[in-house]
Amino acid sequence: MHSDEFRRLGHRLIDWIADYRASIEKRPVMSRAEPGEVRAQLPASPPDQPESFEAVLGDLERVIVPGLSHWQHPSFFAYFPSNSELASVLGDYISTGLGVLGLSWQSSPALTELEEVVVGWVRQMIGLSSEWSGVIQDTASTSTLVALVCARERAAGPNAGRLVVYASAESHSSVAKAAMIAGFGRHAVRQIPTDEVHAMRPDALAAAMKTDVEHDLVPCAVVATTGTTASTAVDPIESIAKIAGEHRAWLHVDAAMAGSAMILPECRWMWNGIEAADSLVLNPHKWMGASFDCSLYYVRDVDHLLGVMSTSPSYLRTRSDQQVNNLRDWGVPLGRRFRALKLWCLIREQGVAGLQARLRRDVENARWLEAEVREAPAWRVLAPVSLQTVCVRHEPPGLEGEALDRHTLAWVDRINRSGAAYLTPAMLDGRWMARVSIGGLATERRHVESLWALMRRETKSDSARPARESDRPKAECS
Amino acid sequence: MHSDEFRRLGHRLIDWIADYRASIEKRPVMSRAEPGEVRAQLPASPPDQPESFEAVLGDLERVIVPGLSHWQHPSFFAYFPSNSELASVLGDYISTGLGVLGLSWQSSPALTELEEVVVGWVRQMIGLSSEWSGVIQDTASTSTLVALVCARERAAGPNAGRLVVYASAESHSSVAKAAMIAGFGRHAVRQIPTDEVHAMRPDALAAAMKTDVEHDLVPCAVVATTGTTASTAVDPIESIAKIAGEHRAWLHVDAAMAGSAMILPECRWMWNGIEAADSLVLNPHKWMGASFDCSLYYVRDVDHLLGVMSTSPSYLRTRSDQQVNNLRDWGVPLGRRFRALKLWCLIREQGVAGLQARLRRDVENARWLEAEVREAPAWRVLAPVSLQTVCVRHEPPGLEGEALDRHTLAWVDRINRSGAAYLTPAMLDGRWMARVSIGGLATERRHVESLWALMRRETKSDSARPARESDRPKAECS
Repeated sequence: MHSDEFRRLGHRLIDWIADYRASIEKRPVMSRAEPGEVRAQLPASPPDQPESFEAVLGDLERVIVPGLSHWQHPSFFAYFPSNSELASVLGDYISTGLGVLGLSWQSSPALTELEEVVVGWVRQMIGLSSEWSGVIQDTASTSTLVALVCARERAAGPNAGRLVVYASAESHSSVAKAAMIAGFGRHAVRQIPTDEVHAMRPDALAAAMKTDVEHDLVPCAVVATTGTTASTAVDPIESIAKIAGEHRAWLHVDAAMAGSAMILPECRWMWNGIEAADSLVLNPHKWMGASFDCSLYYVRDVDHLLGVMSTSPSYLRTRSDQQVNNLRDWGVPLGRRFRALKLWCLIREQGVAGLQARLRRDVENARWLEAEVREAPAWRVLAPVSLQTVCVRHEPPGLEGEALDRHTLAWVDRINRSGAAYLTPAMLDGRWMARVSIGGLATERRHVESLWALMRRETKSDSARPARESDRPKAECS
Repeated sequence: MHSDEFRRLGHRLIDWIADYRASIEKRPVMSRAEPGEVRAQLPASPPDQPESFEAVLGDLERVIVPGLSHWQHPSFFAYFPSNSELASVLGDYISTGLGVLGLSWQSSPALTELEEVVVGWVRQMIGLSSEWSGVIQDTASTSTLVALVCARERAAGPNAGRLVVYASAESHSSVAKAAMIAGFGRHAVRQIPTDEVHAMRPDALAAAMKTDVEHDLVPCAVVATTGTTASTAVDPIESIAKIAGEHRAWLHVDAAMAGSAMILPECRWMWNGIEAADSLVLNPHKWMGASFDCSLYYVRDVDHLLGVMSTSPSYLRTRSDQQVNNLRDWGVPLGRRFRALKLWCLIREQGVAGLQARLRRDVENARWLEAEVREAPAWRVLAPVSLQTVCVRHEPPGLEGEALDRHTLAWVDRINRSGAAYLTPAMLDGRWMARVSIGGLATERRHVESLWALMRRETKSDSARPARESDRPKAECS
């Protein structure tokens, strides 16, 4: 494609994206596509001859968009917010348009140095000391993998094969997956019980470590979570750090979600003791608003990180290697996109004050919903609302156990299929519940109000008439 | 940022990128920035209040661009091509603008199904049977990591701690890194000697495996390379597969670079025996032209892959899980960008015929340069030119050993500092050489001709006058 054609089509695309974002509220939030429906509309073989880009844009509108669940929709309350602020989108557009790569500092010095600058900005914004150094990874899955590999290497040697990883029973699936990838073995991850607010119990952690040591195993790493996936529970870092320290175990803090909230001084209590951790991850591509993917990994001992992860084949060596950071040695992939641009554009266009104002709006909206639910008969709030996630259940009298699960999954499914809002349920204390994850960029109070009205309506309809086949969830969740 | 502002600034940005690409030839290919120079021009702390996006664009031009090495420049002959075709750029713009994520099929059905379609297209384009299933990863580093983890899990159990990985001495650094991350241990990777064309010697592989078995070790995985980094050497897959099969070792083929060339029937000989491999990686973000990052991982035993990599926490379960692919279980990260769009746009806008024509142009350009070098006095071609990389050295009479290395690094450095072209040297048979990696989208014959003239000029200047301090490379390469 010539640059003139790119110019013409690029303008069209910008208008298309602007229209998409401006009119997104009119679309059903969760896609109504059936399995295989999108695939069936696309040719099974590649075109031999060039097609016009107009044909591609036509298919985008006709085939692709109806097959999307719209994460930027103001009534997206599923998973966690994955905000892609439009200033950050432009930052990513610059990156892709430039098409430069960071293999080594020399392969594009500004790519490395802007990353250092912006990662330093966020470090200051979230109140970490200058003892921490950071780098951008793709996702928390990768950041946590790097942490566990570094922990393994610090403990390894004669201890190989006897290393144990600890995380709460509410920790993210990426912890167990990282431990598997890093070769700890499937039985080397301990799920530490949680307390009544779903936070890790330090006494249970201490007991598990003691038992393992008695069995000649070696406590290698503890992953504490700031803001669990199901309920944004907050593990007590200070106590956990003390116990980890007694065993010289690596402490990694998974703040993928809640890390963004550390920009708010009133939330910093969640991180009491953070300076005693060895590494931490927070994802600006979640609540903060950086276009996916943008995960920040901070570490205290950079020399150890480099000792573990560095490679220096001849084709990557440059005359500047002694004076600069080669960020390939801070993560898994060799090739690196210019991700710093999207974070840079976001922070400059919003300002720290702008980001704080938006996060506070979302926390307020969550508190409003919490108060409403608490006052409503037959509704329960199931976990403290520490941030922007409200865990709720509608518990009509007489309904419990699996019947209650069916009721929960059914009304959530009705909401999702209505297209008016999108929720993803999860299990808490062994029972299904609805997670209302607030925090979309476009999500204002009125959207939360509409959701709450919808929740009451859809739970009523369930008890008002006998369930029909079409209402029943086919699998265990919506 | 409101959608109206995005529209206005987006148009400006499209023009900026179009101008950047159209005028890129006027810029020095390799950045002249000194270490710290970019960072020094940026504020050390984040802005509290919002800034205008115009200020960001101003800094982009003033601070960032001079700090870039321009990978899309027609005289970029460094590393490997990382072509970002403008149709593919638009595909990536759609992805970022939509801001949708693939955690599960349901979280955006079209994201998964377009990926299945496009990965199937490439499978057909490169002549793989339908026994292969594919997925998009970020980079070959990750694809190879997934392969080695799968190999480890297939062999593990009683064999843990005794597993060995084999790759040629010319294999990419990502192989050793993946083995380290996967916990094989630093001493568990055998570098198999290569033959006179730098391909893995099957007899040496067989001997190494035999020795290991005699020492009660377990051959776990072999990584064969189709197109090594230094010289695009081609390991003989058929023979290697036979030896790997005798030990039930996993065979992974690293075709990150040369995989794109399999679109050309005349290059398929490089893949003789490929159907006996267990997994392979090829990077459309290299020569093919998909915007970085886009690495294809193909595997034969999907059930095994899923058995190793799957997680299914409650918050990710959906009613469709039995009917669809959840691609998070095919790789490391949970969150996934809509990467298929950039590959889809590339293939449709170019057509298979268009991609073939461009690859053939590059192969022809490499052969032209090879012929020129072969005819020139004191110049040597050091390896077969199987694809688009020409390995050369200027060897003035009487110059050898470290003096020859200094000469090589000095003239490459002069070229790079001139801004007229960018080469990255590498070691082959223990000596530095210049790699001329041809294959940029914009690279035509005239650019290769200019480079060749420049090479002859810069090597002359070295011998015509005594070296000055400023000519000497400070480190071991440029």
